[in-house]
Amino acid sequence: MNNFIFHSPTKFVFGKNTEFQVGALLKSYKAKKVLIHYGTGSIKRSGLFDRVVQSIQKENIDFVELGGVVPNPRDTLVYEGIELCKKEKVDFVLAVGGGSAIDSAKAIAAGSKYDGDFWDFYDGKATIEDALGIGVVLTIPAAGSEGSASSVITKTDGMLKRGHYSPFYRAQFSIINPELTYTLPSYQTSAGAVDMMGHIFERYFTKSENTLFVDRLAEGTLVSIIEAAKVLMDDPTNYEARSVICWAGTIAHNGFFGVGRNEDWASHRLEHELSALYDVTHGAGLAVIYPAYMKYTIDVDVQRYKRFAMKVFGVESINKTDKEVALEGISKLEEFYQSIGMPTRFEGINAKKEDIDFLVEKLEENVGQEFGHYQVLNLEDAKNIYLLACAK
Amino acid sequence: MNNFIFHSPTKFVFGKNTEFQVGALLKSYKAKKVLIHYGTGSIKRSGLFDRVVQSIQKENIDFVELGGVVPNPRDTLVYEGIELCKKEKVDFVLAVGGGSAIDSAKAIAAGSKYDGDFWDFYDGKATIEDALGIGVVLTIPAAGSEGSASSVITKTDGMLKRGHYSPFYRAQFSIINPELTYTLPSYQTSAGAVDMMGHIFERYFTKSENTLFVDRLAEGTLVSIIEAAKVLMDDPTNYEARSVICWAGTIAHNGFFGVGRNEDWASHRLEHELSALYDVTHGAGLAVIYPAYMKYTIDVDVQRYKRFAMKVFGVESINKTDKEVALEGISKLEEFYQSIGMPTRFEGINAKKEDIDFLVEKLEENVGQEFGHYQVLNLEDAKNIYLLACAK
Repeated sequence: MNNFIFHSPTKFVFGKNTEFQVGALLKSYKAKKVLIHYGTGSIKRSGLFDRVVQSIQKENIDFVELGGVVPNPRDTLVYEGIELCKKEKVDFVLAVGGGSAIDSAKAIAAGSKYDGDFWDFYDGKATIEDALGIGVVLTIPAAGSEGSASSVITKTDGMLKRGHYSPFYRAQFSIINPELTYTLPSYQTSAGAVDMMGHIFERYFTKSENTLFVDRLAEGTLVSIIEAAKVLMDDPTNYEARSVICWAGTIAHNGFFGVGRNEDWASHRLEHELSALYDVTHGAGLAVIYPAYMKYTIDVDVQRYKRFAMKVFGVESINKTDKEVALEGISKLEEFYQSIGMPTRFEGINAKKEDIDFLVEKLEENVGQEFGHYQVLNLEDAKNIYLLACAK
Repeated sequence: MNNFIFHSPTKFVFGKNTEFQVGALLKSYKAKKVLIHYGTGSIKRSGLFDRVVQSIQKENIDFVELGGVVPNPRDTLVYEGIELCKKEKVDFVLAVGGGSAIDSAKAIAAGSKYDGDFWDFYDGKATIEDALGIGVVLTIPAAGSEGSASSVITKTDGMLKRGHYSPFYRAQFSIINPELTYTLPSYQTSAGAVDMMGHIFERYFTKSENTLFVDRLAEGTLVSIIEAAKVLMDDPTNYEARSVICWAGTIAHNGFFGVGRNEDWASHRLEHELSALYDVTHGAGLAVIYPAYMKYTIDVDVQRYKRFAMKVFGVESINKTDKEVALEGISKLEEFYQSIGMPTRFEGINAKKEDIDFLVEKLEENVGQEFGHYQVLNLEDAKNIYLLACAK
């Protein structure tokens, strides 16, 4: 195992009716005035917003609200949130939603304690030294932002999609009630499953050695996600399957599977360009990228792909070459994605082959000439992977 | 999954040479004066104490020291530590050692901020409302106290061994350098493996339903501990095996495997009486208790024991009844314990059949008439399990 620091200080409050604890939790973290930050208003229609507000008011905590977060959240709303927080003397940002609302809330929390332009953090020009408190009521299990130290924001001017990592981006608490995810559209449920699996892939496919212990934990989690996602296609209010997805999504990205190894994140870089250009759901974009990425990098470590095939998809190895087993694993992954309604090629997300040069250009702008660790990719590799993702 | 709260805020700093970071870590938590708390002096002979002191002095942090912690740590030293901390205005307790030093440090940290007798916490008469900061440099992977919210102290007067749980018992940071465990006597290494496996067993053997996801993670961890413990019998300076043991021991008891389920802890109750009376290493006592406990409770859920046998020990199920498979798993566990030099019967720890009535008497004093969850045990059951543990 490589040396590592694992620090996941967030208090995870998991289970039925846990949203009723939000007021008491905010009080325990000494919140006085809260910004409730959310998306398109579905939390108002569902009654969740009212339950949250009642719980907050019960503790005599003030609040203001800011809705309108969109998928691939924009810098413009972050600026608005920061202005509101400064004006209203907000000391705690409560995201009610999925990864977009949480990522946006994180940027607002840091930007509100910073005199300069919050984009400096995402541009690598400044380091976060303070932030407002951050709390979460999760409604979409996917991004893992409820447990992670990261936030991804898109700069509208130029459509730059950039991530930033900071210990200040760990929520103080995250409320995770699987029942709140019952009404998610099937497409979002599936994209979420792909997303959290991706967070594990970025750690599982590593060149680091002596990773078997955590590999086993990763495989057990992948198997559990796959099983649960399949159940939810037919039975979206299956509490146990929703629970598995919710908890797996959280530990998939709080750092637990990254201990003792180098992480990769090349596929995420490749996908970010897709979702920035086409505004496609991140998970759907990943379902397009991973099969192509895996085929392209199969010779980096055939044994690892073979193990993946056998442990995660139960591929048999008798009378097959290692590479055949490895490829069968990738096929099984594609089949799984398709079985839960996910696209696995450019055309499934209305992406165009003729945009590839532009995608690579934006990639260069965002990550430079080289990226990734499992296989260090250059821009030519990136182009080839995009091309593979176009193939029939 | 049952509702749960998972909150493991400790910063785990893992790997080679990490003890050199202790000063900087203490500084980051604003420590001004530290009590270095340790055991029998082996950390002085090994040079670890000097490295820790140098790192602390480099940051201009003051310190006092208190050694002398013994296995099954005593209240008497805790009182001494509390007096020292109050007198010297200590604000941070740094345990350098294993579970005993850490548990003792936790009691000192809480007792130093309490006007009454610290034993009130262990007696259930008071709740911890404040504590000094707690840091750890781990030298014995076993108890998991570096990541847990618990502390077990023995009251010398009457030999009462009692545990207490508190969020204040989570260390702010724990430094885990697997190399520091190279010189552990083989017996301690083995007892540590048994101990951490026990922390998983207490969660794995549950009557809660829908636990498959976390069961898989538990099984992967158990397999990894067993493999690593075997390697260390012949190759005690194998860094990778030491790493697996160290990290598995930490996550085995920080609550990770307890999410969404009821925990048991009956075997720990039964063992505490053994180590209180005979001053036996906790892990060795557990190796005596678990096979007896498992045989006694096998009919509670044969399927669970069967799964354990198959997933952890690779027992084949063809042409066998479920119970045969389950029993074979328990035999494999006994064989494993024996293969790493652990006792599996009373005689192996110099415990006596004729003491059983006394053990049950003390058990009643400590836990009352009933305990455990997987099977709720009464005192007659306890006697029967002790008797099974005497059998040849």
